Amino acid sequence: MKYPVFFISDSTAITTETVGLSLLAQFPSLEFNKYTLPFIDTPLKAQQAYELINKKSEQYGQNALVFSSMVQPELCHIIQQANALVLDLFEHYLTELEQFFHKTSKHAIGLAHKPEAEESYKQRIAAVDFSMLSDDGTNLKHYEKAEVILVGVSRSGKTPTCLYLALQYGIRAANYPLVAEDFLDTSLPKALKDHQDKLIGLTIEPNRLHAIRKERRSTRAYADPGLCRQEIRYANQLFQRYNIPSLDTTHRSIEELSARIIALKGFKQNSD
Amino acid sequence: MKYPVFFISDSTAITTETVGLSLLAQFPSLEFNKYTLPFIDTPLKAQQAYELINKKSEQYGQNALVFSSMVQPELCHIIQQANALVLDLFEHYLTELEQFFHKTSKHAIGLAHKPEAEESYKQRIAAVDFSMLSDDGTNLKHYEKAEVILVGVSRSGKTPTCLYLALQYGIRAANYPLVAEDFLDTSLPKALKDHQDKLIGLTIEPNRLHAIRKERRSTRAYADPGLCRQEIRYANQLFQRYNIPSLDTTHRSIEELSARIIALKGFKQNSD
Repeated sequence: MKYPVFFISDSTAITTETVGLSLLAQFPSLEFNKYTLPFIDTPLKAQQAYELINKKSEQYGQNALVFSSMVQPELCHIIQQANALVLDLFEHYLTELEQFFHKTSKHAIGLAHKPEAEESYKQRIAAVDFSMLSDDGTNLKHYEKAEVILVGVSRSGKTPTCLYLALQYGIRAANYPLVAEDFLDTSLPKALKDHQDKLIGLTIEPNRLHAIRKERRSTRAYADPGLCRQEIRYANQLFQRYNIPSLDTTHRSIEELSARIIALKGFKQNSD
Repeated sequence: MKYPVFFISDSTAITTETVGLSLLAQFPSLEFNKYTLPFIDTPLKAQQAYELINKKSEQYGQNALVFSSMVQPELCHIIQQANALVLDLFEHYLTELEQFFHKTSKHAIGLAHKPEAEESYKQRIAAVDFSMLSDDGTNLKHYEKAEVILVGVSRSGKTPTCLYLALQYGIRAANYPLVAEDFLDTSLPKALKDHQDKLIGLTIEPNRLHAIRKERRSTRAYADPGLCRQEIRYANQLFQRYNIPSLDTTHRSIEELSARIIALKGFKQNSD
């Protein structure tokens, strides 16, 4: 038996879905069919969503579960009439916040995203530009401007992590790919010598690296288990020798890696 | 007067902060000092967070506001003793979900991120690879494999939107930069002819384009207001002539653009 689950929002529904999915992850034995409905921002659209919920509840013979975030009470109200358990992220908390601040809230759509007004948004876009230009060590001069440099062998997770750091946090993240010639001697690659305080090593279990490389490329040598083991061993030795803090990417998502990198580097996340 | 606001999580705190900030955006007249505390996953760390909250509440002469998401009730409980309004994203909803499913939840950390097990995670990483390889029209053969191709003038928002589509949704998004030679005649650029069903146009107000270009590059010609107006006019005419659906990026974040692109293209977000 699968449960029908809706994620409904007057905006992108990205946050609504993320929250909903992390709550549902606490029920790993259950299965869900997901329906994401973004931009439900008029009574008509809310009415259509209401009808779809009821249709699914009937089809499944089971009340649907609805995660919603609607800042306008009248739209929220329409959804709440459906044959479903409706958990609205805004309704519950806005009431508590209004009491806390002794202030009514705006209940207005679109207050959360104002790209042109926000310094932090500009910073994110600038960091994305930076990551694109400096990807995979092709522009070593960028290391000067980088806030962090991820060091690791091919397919250890450097590029997507750099991009996530840029997109989510506005951090200028460069990367340095460790290749065969870096392992010819035991010293730190020349390009990194002046930037030791910016380095974070990425490591990974050899079996997982082998699996990833095998999926990606056709040449057998590249994914060879022995080569994977050797490269990782060299990389880990380098991290140890130069006291480079490192993270194992085997079981970590780019979200977690990014948050841990920020914690490791002590990037300012707090107001003081 | 500023309010101290905490975002506390046993995981990355990314979702907690996003939810908290979108709620606070409903109180635009208030100001906040933000403290983000990720990976609070032991009683000791929870105790330290508790003490920091109390310290700030005292410093500000004002109870702090705490958004938390802690799946373990004992950690949640420690935070809730602080001199603060604590709004926990899990506590409230897990209880409701347990009743709905007639099932107890796991209350276990780390269930939400299992990168190696999830097909959708692999798809996101593969889509990031794709976006990097196909960025800015340098690899036209990638258009075959693209699910969507964003078309627009330089600095209209193509690259960060492609990356967000890849990172968040696992969508293979390529882009085509419209340049001077594309405007020499009125026909669709040759590279796009076989892919008309994949195209989405990005447009932007000329003043905003001018401001963005001025900030980014030093050459005056590139940011010239007249050139910006002309390029945008040509681009919009192209979109109209070939019935290319288009989005104005002037006041839209990459999150919103991505969600709207998915809605426009009808990418499968629902289970049926």
